[in-house]
Order: sequence, then structure tokens, then C-alpha cells
Amino acid sequence: MKVSIIGATGYTGEELLRILAGHPAVEILYITSESRTGTQINEIYPHFTRFHDGILASVQEIDKIAAESQAVFIGLPHGHAMEVGKKVRAVNPKIKIIDLGADYRFRNADLYEKWYKVPHTHREAQAVYGLTELYRSRVREAEIVGNPGCYTTASILALAPLVVSKLIDLATIVVDAKSGVSGAGRGLNLGSHFAEVFESVKAYSIAGHRHTPEIEQTLGELAGTDVIISFTPHLIPMTRGILSTCYASLKPGVSAEAVDAAFTAMYDNEYFIRLLGRGGYPATKNTRGSNFCDIGWHIDPRTGRVIVVAAIDNLVKGAAGQAVQNLNVMFGLDEQMGLTQVPLYP
Amino acid sequence: MKVSIIGATGYTGEELLRILAGHPAVEILYITSESRTGTQINEIYPHFTRFHDGILASVQEIDKIAAESQAVFIGLPHGHAMEVGKKVRAVNPKIKIIDLGADYRFRNADLYEKWYKVPHTHREAQAVYGLTELYRSRVREAEIVGNPGCYTTASILALAPLVVSKLIDLATIVVDAKSGVSGAGRGLNLGSHFAEVFESVKAYSIAGHRHTPEIEQTLGELAGTDVIISFTPHLIPMTRGILSTCYASLKPGVSAEAVDAAFTAMYDNEYFIRLLGRGGYPATKNTRGSNFCDIGWHIDPRTGRVIVVAAIDNLVKGAAGQAVQNLNVMFGLDEQMGLTQVPLYP
Amino acid sequence: MKVSIIGATGYTGEELLRILAGHPAVEILYITSESRTGTQINEIYPHFTRFHDGILASVQEIDKIAAESQAVFIGLPHGHAMEVGKKVRAVNPKIKIIDLGADYRFRNADLYEKWYKVPHTHREAQAVYGLTELYRSRVREAEIVGNPGCYTTASILALAPLVVSKLIDLATIVVDAKSGVSGAGRGLNLGSHFAEVFESVKAYSIAGHRHTPEIEQTLGELAGTDVIISFTPHLIPMTRGILSTCYASLKPGVSAEAVDAAFTAMYDNEYFIRLLGRGGYPATKNTRGSNFCDIGWHIDPRTGRVIVVAAIDNLVKGAAGQAVQNLNVMFGLDEQMGLTQVPLYP
Amino acid sequence: MKVSIIGATGYTGEELLRILAGHPAVEILYITSESRTGTQINEIYPHFTRFHDGILASVQEIDKIAAESQAVFIGLPHGHAMEVGKKVRAVNPKIKIIDLGADYRFRNADLYEKWYKVPHTHREAQAVYGLTELYRSRVREAEIVGNPGCYTTASILALAPLVVSKLIDLATIVVDAKSGVSGAGRGLNLGSHFAEVFESVKAYSIAGHRHTPEIEQTLGELAGTDVIISFTPHLIPMTRGILSTCYASLKPGVSAEAVDAAFTAMYDNEYFIRLLGRGGYPATKNTRGSNFCDIGWHIDPRTGRVIVVAAIDNLVKGAAGQAVQNLNVMFGLDEQMGLTQVPLYP
Repeated sequence: MKVSIIGATGYTGEELLRILAGHPAVEILYITSESRTGTQINEIYPHFTRFHDGILASVQEIDKIAAESQAVFIGLPHGHAMEVGKKVRAVNPKIKIIDLGADYRFRNADLYEKWYKVPHTHREAQAVYGLTELYRSRVREAEIVGNPGCYTTASILALAPLVVSKLIDLATIVVDAKSGVSGAGRGLNLGSHFAEVFESVKAYSIAGHRHTPEIEQTLGELAGTDVIISFTPHLIPMTRGILSTCYASLKPGVSAEAVDAAFTAMYDNEYFIRLLGRGGYPATKNTRGSNFCDIGWHIDPRTGRVIVVAAIDNLVKGAAGQAVQNLNVMFGLDEQMGLTQVPLYP
Repeated sequence: MKVSIIGATGYTGEELLRILAGHPAVEILYITSESRTGTQINEIYPHFTRFHDGILASVQEIDKIAAESQAVFIGLPHGHAMEVGKKVRAVNPKIKIIDLGADYRFRNADLYEKWYKVPHTHREAQAVYGLTELYRSRVREAEIVGNPGCYTTASILALAPLVVSKLIDLATIVVDAKSGVSGAGRGLNLGSHFAEVFESVKAYSIAGHRHTPEIEQTLGELAGTDVIISFTPHLIPMTRGILSTCYASLKPGVSAEAVDAAFTAMYDNEYFIRLLGRGGYPATKNTRGSNFCDIGWHIDPRTGRVIVVAAIDNLVKGAAGQAVQNLNVMFGLDEQMGLTQVPLYP
Repeated sequence: MKVSIIGATGYTGEELLRILAGHPAVEILYITSESRTGTQINEIYPHFTRFHDGILASVQEIDKIAAESQAVFIGLPHGHAMEVGKKVRAVNPKIKIIDLGADYRFRNADLYEKWYKVPHTHREAQAVYGLTELYRSRVREAEIVGNPGCYTTASILALAPLVVSKLIDLATIVVDAKSGVSGAGRGLNLGSHFAEVFESVKAYSIAGHRHTPEIEQTLGELAGTDVIISFTPHLIPMTRGILSTCYASLKPGVSAEAVDAAFTAMYDNEYFIRLLGRGGYPATKNTRGSNFCDIGWHIDPRTGRVIVVAAIDNLVKGAAGQAVQNLNVMFGLDEQMGLTQVPLYP
Repeated sequence: MKVSIIGATGYTGEELLRILAGHPAVEILYITSESRTGTQINEIYPHFTRFHDGILASVQEIDKIAAESQAVFIGLPHGHAMEVGKKVRAVNPKIKIIDLGADYRFRNADLYEKWYKVPHTHREAQAVYGLTELYRSRVREAEIVGNPGCYTTASILALAPLVVSKLIDLATIVVDAKSGVSGAGRGLNLGSHFAEVFESVKAYSIAGHRHTPEIEQTLGELAGTDVIISFTPHLIPMTRGILSTCYASLKPGVSAEAVDAAFTAMYDNEYFIRLLGRGGYPATKNTRGSNFCDIGWHIDPRTGRVIVVAAIDNLVKGAAGQAVQNLNVMFGLDEQMGLTQVPLYP
């Protein structure tokens, strides 16, 4: 299968390259970068030596790229992906698109515009939200997949069983998430400076982070009603990993066993979801470099709350890994193909 | 003022030594360690060279220590401090005691026994809970101070204004806290091994951490009614620092200005509380090595919740620094004495 | 191929498990641990869930293990491996042994005894030193391989071309190496405590580290004369990785081109050696999780010295990866089998 | 004493502010920043709240600043400091200048121009090299002090006793140094990005770092002859701290006791030099936040080399702390004034 990556030099694009290098059914055709067009990828990322020696093309060659590729991954800032998406589909109507940004994540383009402050210019796209475990059958048929955000993936996977099984009071959901720095990308800003991040932790974008409506959209769809949550992201001094700690009040009379059953019913056959069970404590380190989402849950009889904790590698299950998982589903391949590396520990 | 430290070789005891080295009114008389009796302190902690060259005594000399000291700090595991406390008071009824562990933190000894699983053997002690900003007048008169826990300090200081001003629904409080590794002490266990902590984050003791009843006791006293909260501690890859992110639903009709006023009314004259205001984002790095507690708060009109974030250095305001603050209050000294170092940044 | 791992729960054994999980020609038969016999491996290392669910056996079952296995890896402390090695060979004379410790690294058992302070009890072993790039043909025929140490691998690979090509004054070699904490193993000691390692760097074992004679043995063999070096290891706050910075005086008249030629002559066809060339700067991050050794060199005309820098992942090329590389060579497999993962970056 | 800081918002300037906040004889008059003129310092560095609320001035006001100040610290990039220095001296001939950059470090302006590639425009300046322990009497009389570089300070202090006592072969000196990221400043570049630095170590500027001639100048002056060294800096994943590992061949017949005597003769009365003795292992963590330089040395009878290791906090003894030490000497104050904080550990 011939695939190309539009925007290959950010951490997400680079992680796609890493994963696809071990994918037995994929040939990487083009990789692009506007800032580094013409450069060999391993000048930018020397660790790719022996794996990739491709020259970075420009998105200006999108017609040729679209014509020759069977699938494209898009790793561009929001607002840019939909422009590329339109062109790609126009040139090659059979091509599959997986966008790792936000442009194709929302069923409601108005919601997108409200949170992202740019007009949506590809409203006619038949895009599917690519949280694979929840929407596998839709992904299978999709032309365009909006690959979920990193916080979103961990948080939705943690809460979905409780919402689907109607065990929690939807008005009480609080999601407190902690992320490594790679989630902020490779761009330069003071917030990613080593000396500023090291030995520090802080919250940011409280009550305003753009992953909030994405979580709400999916939980709302699962619930069959609107869901409004509190979501707080934190930056912590590590490179990869997201831990999402989710709180909700159990409905009266819900037993611990019912909670357990909700998780096993939903995930017991999911390869990439590893249930640590009631009382389990996921750690991001156990998922590093892999496409797993580890989930543990706790019931607090004193407060009547359930606390669910989910851990992922933000660049894999939270971005490039799930994108490849979606690629596999879209092309009818084994869903695990290229995604069976053991997490790198310690 | 002649003070001694019972249990001086853990991180808390060592931090006391650091702070007291710069305290103009304090002379350190005895320091003890059972595992290292007879050793010079700077063989264990070479950074003390030029500051301390004291030889570690044993707690078996407690009669002499108590007789000659005007105040003792106790940095022993819970269950041991109260035994020392009894002896110290018996020998020297005028001596002041500041215990950095849990033995003297609870007004209700039964509550202590329930959470700490040991009998309380010093129930007659007239101990005061040493969260200085809230209980300054009691501390001033106290014979024994139970110095608050690290998570506790950050969490109570974050929520107290809202509770006192009756702005929040007490049944909705969720506290999600993140701590550096020094909070777990210098003892050896796999959970503090560098390779295990690095590049990882995890929750622990969900719905069962012993700081929970301590937070509830104080919030309950401030509220005039029982308070039950959800509290989740997390371990993150840094050495010092606690960030406590606190959620609660505002009562209907509470304005943002009322929330602001609650914080300024309570803390505007507190030197060690630095209010970052509504929309402010505390970072633990800004408090490192100092006795400050930085607080910012956010109001989420979508969910009706207030989110308060507090940052401290767990070893200073969360332990040794607040202990010295209490010492100053107990002896009628300037409360800031010995505690005016600029945080170490970056 | 049926292989077993004696001592599977240290970081080296665990890394073997990780790598072998992706090795298409290997079946893991037994894994052992004396401290955790009877435990399932993923209770100790949850990240292995979906990959290994084996129960840890005891080395007391070594007869059965030896009889059924075609190869065993030994990950035991020095002094213990040779005892196991003797038994294994006695039971199954055709079995291949790869020892990841020091017991089989020295051609001269007296030298081993001098540095390791234990008697060598398996002197009759026909062991080969497993620095694959240098001794491939010997490894191919070997019954027992003494797998090189981590510092050793990086340092020898950096210097070997200069020694072989006789370009440097052998009396002037200085090796200054920096290692992550995983090199010290998973055992508990204050030196691996997060709060002690974090934000610190120090040297240790100056002029006395046990990898010194190992480096000297091989450089001496390559030179055809005794070589004595200065070797200084340092501990730095990271988990994986070794950087070895090597200094030597060039012989009079040696040109930069001659230095370049020495490296390319020796390594140009080596898959696992990536030459960054003259002026290149290896970084351990580029090798993380992989079996690569990245090498760059610099010539200082002011001092007449050549400075060579080599970077590896201490747990892979410095231990488990090279062990698997040797396994492949010993069994006539493709040398890269199971070792083609892209380094994990960032 | 009224002092001003020209260039106060880099890590060096900010560290000066931290130290001077605790200096009993200093009043900070002006602080400047060209990029943030008009901003209050604690908007940029919130940790200064309660300590500084000064508004950043511009260097365009240098005449007023010079006229009103008794001393100025300059924390500007090289090439800019000498311009400011000239103006300051022109306005106020009695003012003392301490430059934390390179402009005033070289006795030979041609050497400066060769390594720094800019013309030296203030050749008539009577500047003194401010390595206080070596040049205290010159500093006492100085009008302008060129404050030493961070690598330089650690490396010279490590080697000076051996050079002065003529115990080593000067042609054999190798200095291998490791630095935290703050040494590269607060400016944005990929090399300081958290995700790039974390879990990595690399060398840089091999045989070309600008601190090389600075070390050589001083060692040469101490030796009474030219000295040429190999110097290799490394970047490691920590914020503060430099460890300098120095190698040299002992002259024939030099005893271990002679080496010991060289160190004690030179430093026994130096408050800021803490000798760990023969066999001692300095760690940067023990110096963090303090003006100490910890030194240990080792003799390797096998190779005839002496290995000296020195640890400092690069921002304190390697920059701002030594600058304040020099200020104290220049104004006849107690040399330790403002510099007696215990290192922050852990």
C-alpha cells in the first residue's frame, strides 16, 4: 500500500514514520515539509538512518502525491489540513485520508468554528471520527478519518463504558489530565524550554482547552444526550505519555460489579485496551512507544464516585499509532499490523 | 533559641537543617538519627559542609535533649512521634513541640487510629493543627503543633476561602494532586527508583490516602459541617513540588467577583500566600525552595464549577518551612524569620 | 529456536524479553528468577501484558531447562553465571550460552579474579568475547559467549579503528563515559533513588571500574601489545544510554583523511554502526531502544589529539541487543533479525 | 551600595537578582531589558513576587543608570558589553563594572577577536579576570572585572593547584565537562527543547568551544608558559550544574601526598572551595543554588595520571554568584556577604 505523509517533520509525522517503518504492508511514497523542503529526513532526525533516506517534498506537489498514493496522513496545523484534504480528494476520489489534526474531528462544523476560530472550508467531507475501538465499523467505510486528539483518546476510552452503560451522573464528570511535553510539538516556545519545564508542573487552558468539545461530542453521542464536562490539562516534566484521571458520581445503587462489567463488556476483546481492573493503577511508562491504552478504575464508597485512570503514549495511541490502526481498518488489514512493539521500559 | 531535631536524616529533617541554618534566632542543639547515630551530618549530606558539622545523637538521649532544648521538631514515622512527645513533655513541661508527622494532626484520636491503624497513646496532648494561615492564634498559644501534611497544605489553602465564604457545594469537591518524589522520603523502594519514576506518571492510593481525613477535618471545621471529598495523589517525575488542582460546583448565583473576594479577603495580608488571581496558573517551579503557596482560580461558566490550583514546595510550605513558620509564631518572632529566600529558578 | 533466560527480572533480562518478543525465529521456553519464582512476569512488569504471560521458574530446575533449550541467556550477578554455565553445558553439551555478565569475558581468568575478587570456577570454558563487529567469526563457532559490558561496547567500538590502523599513541588514551541509571540495575540503593540522581551528575569508580580491564584486553589484542587506559564512568540523570568520549594523541603525521579511512574501512559494512563522520555529534537519544552504535570523530590540530564519541543504548547494544545479535550469529541467522526497530525518538 | 543590572532577564541576570535580594549591603537601582522594556520583572519571572517589583528600563538610559549607580553588572551577549562598558565609564569614572560575558576576560584582545570573531572596541579598559580565588588582590583594585565563564571556573579551579605546584605535564591536559541546560540561556532553540534534551547526552563544540582559550590563558599565566588543552563540553538533561573531569599525567616521581598538598596549600582557607580530598566524588547536586566549588582528586598509579573532578552550580559560582563575590571584594565587604545559602538538596 502506497502512503504519503503531508507534514512529516513534527513529532506526530516523525512518529508515523517510525511506526510505518515496521509496517509490513506499507510503502512510504512521499513525505513533505514546507520549512525543510528538499532536505533528507535523517538530516533532521538522525535516528532514521538505516530506515528512511527520503527527501522532503512540498505540499505544492499535492496533485502528484494524491494521484500516486492510496492513502495520505495529514500532520498539519488545524485550518490547513482541510485545504489539503479537499485537493487530495479532488485529484483522487478513491484515496483515503487520515488527518491527525482537528479539522475533521467534529460532526458539527459550527462547533469546530466556535472552538478553533477559523471557518471550516470542507463541510461536505464525509469524515468519521477515528476513535477506533468505538467507531470501528464507521472507520472501515470511511473516506476521511479525523484522528482523535491525545487527551481525547485517553479520556473518552476511560469514560465510555460508564456512559454507555448509564452508570454515572453525566453532570458530574471531571477529567484531570497530565501530559508530557511532546504533546506541545517540536516548535520553539518558552513553555517547551527544558529549564522551564524541568522540576515543574502546571495546569493550562483551564475550562478552555480545545479537546473539551471533542470529548463532549463523543460522550454525548454515546449517552444520547448532551454532555458537559470539566477538563483540565497539565504539563509535566516528561516527554511522552498522557494520564487521564476521570471522576464521576455513580448513579444511586450502582454496584462495583456493574462497573467492572461495563469495562469488560466493552473492552475485553480489544487488543489495544489493557484493563488493569478495579483497583489497578496505570502508569504511562508501561505504554511508552506502544499503541496500548491501560485502564484501571476505583470506587469510592465514601463519596459515591468512580475514578477511572487511563494511560497512553500521546504520540502513539494518542496520535500516530491510532492513525495506523485506522489505516489498517480502512484497508481491511489486521488491525494490529505494524503496532505490536513491546512498550519500551524502563 | 535552642532547638533540637529528632529524626534529622530524612528529607524533612534535612530540609529543617537547611532552613534553620539561615534562621538568625535559632541555635541547633541536638540532631538525632537511630540508623546513623554517631555519624557527622555532612558525611550523609555533604552539601552541609560549611554549615553543619554536628554528630547525630540517639533518641535514647531524649531526656537530656528535652531538658536543654526550648523547642523540638520531630521528624519520625507516625506512631513514634507521640512516644517521643510524651517523654519530652514529661521532662520539660515548658518545651514547645512541632511534629512533622501525623500523630498530632487530628482533633479526634479515633479518626487517627482508623486511618493510621495504630493506637494513639498521647490523647491528653493539647495539640494544635499547624496550618499557620488558618490557625495562627491557636498556634501562638500551642504547646504541641501537629504540622500539616504536604498534600493537605496545598489543598486546604486552595479551598478554604470558598468554604469559609460558603460559595461552593461541599458535596462536589474533587482534589487531584501531583507530587514530586521527595514526598515519599529517602527510604529505598522500587517506587522511588529513578528508572521507574522517570518518564512516567501514575496515581496511587485512590480513595484511601491518609491525607484525605486531614483535609476533611479542616474543611469541615471551616464549614461547620462534615465534608467528604475525593482526593487523588499522583507521582510525577520531579523531586520537589506539589500541585493541587481542586474542583467544586459553585452554588447557584455565585459571581466571579464573589469568588475573587473570598480569596483576597482571606489571603491579601498573608506574606506566604501569593494570589495569582482569577485566570492565574501556578507552577511548582516558582515556589521551589521557598515557603510560598501560589494560588490561581478559574471559573467555568459552562459547568458552573470553580477550579482552584495551588502550588507549593512539598518540603518547605508542605513540611519544614511551615514548621519553622509555626516555630516563629509560637515564640513571638517575626513570622517570616528564616523564610525569606527567593525561590530557586530555573 | 527454543531459548531460556536465567535471571529474567533485572533490566537486562527484561530487555531480552522485549527484544525476543519481536524475534521471528525464537520461542522463549523458560524464564527464571530466584526472588520471584512462581510469579507471572507481567505482575512484575505490567508492560509485558499481551506479550508474555510466562511463570518464573527457578534456577534449581536448570537441568530441565538445559535439556530442553537450544540456547540460554544468563543474566545473573558475576560469580553465579559460571556455576550455571557449567551445569548447563554438562547437561546439554550442544547448547549455546550467552552470558550477559562478566564471568566469560576474560581470556585470562587470573585477570578476572584480580578485578572481580572471586575465584573463576569454569576455566575450561571455551568462551568467546562477544563484541560482534570485532569477533564475528569467533562468535559464529562459539559455545559460550561472554557478552561485553555496556561501557566497554561503546568505548571499544569508538577506539578500535584507530588502534587497528595504528594511528594513535596507545599510552595517551583517556575514556570519559556517561551512563543512564538503568546501567546500575533495578536493585535498590541510594545511588538510584530518583531524588538523589535528578539534577545531578557525578563520576564514580575513577581508576578502578571493572570495565577497564575489559576495554584494555580487547584494545590490547587489536594492538598486539598491552594497552593501559584511563577510564572514568559518570552517572547522569537519564534512564537509558551511554556516551563514551575518547581521547588519544595522533601519531606524528597522521592526517585527518587517514583517521576517516580507519573508521570507514572497519565499519562501512556494519549495519549496527552508524558513522556520523568527522565532525559528527552522536546523541544517546538517537539510539534509544535500538542496537545501533553511533560514532563521530574530531581532530584537534591545536593539541594533536583525536576525540571519538560513541553513543549506544546501554540495555540494547550494551547488553540485551548485542546478546541477540550474537545469538543470530551463533545460529547462522540474519544478524539483524529481531533488531530492526527504529530508535524511539523523542 | 547602589547597583544596576544591564540585561536582567536572562538566566544570569535573573540569578543576580535572586542573590542580590538576600545581600544586606546592596540596593538594586535599575534593571534593564531591551526586549521587555517597561515590563515589571515579576511578570516575566513570577517567582520574584514579594522580592522585586521593578520595571525594566532600557539600556538607552545608560547615562542616568551610570551616573546614579556605584556598580553595574552587565549580562549582555558578547560584543555588546564592551559598548556599554565604555559608556558607563565615560559617564561615571568611579563606577565599578562586572561583566558576566566574555568581553573583558582576555588580557590579549587579539585572542578575544580570534575566538569571538568581533573587533574589540574597548582595548584601553583596565579589566581584571575575576576568578576570585586566584586573582583576589587584582579584583580588589579593579575598575572592570571580566567575570569567568562557567566551564572555565570549574576547570581552572580543578587544575590550578597542580599547575602552580608544577606537578603535571602541561601537554597532557584533557578537560571533559558536563553542563545543565541553563548554561545555554533562556533563548529559544531546538537544542534547549525539553523533548530533545530529555533522556539524551551529547558533546558539542569539540576542539572549538570559546571557553578553551579562557582556560588556557589562566593556566598559562599560572604556569608561566603557554598551555594548550583539549576541552570537550557536553549537554546533559539537567537544569543547573557543571561537572568538570580533568586529566593530566603526573610528572615522574610525584607522590600522592604532593598532590594532596598542592590542593590544601591553595584552597584550605577558601570558604567557597570545599575539598573532598583524594578519592572524593563531587556531585553537582551538592552545590545547587550555592557559590561553592567542590573538588575531589584521584591518582591512577596504573597510568600515572591524576584525575580531578570539580562541581559547581553554573549560574552561581559559574556566573552570578562569583560576580557578587567579586563585587564584595571590589567594595571591601565580607567576601561571603549574600552568598551563604545552603545548597538546595535534594
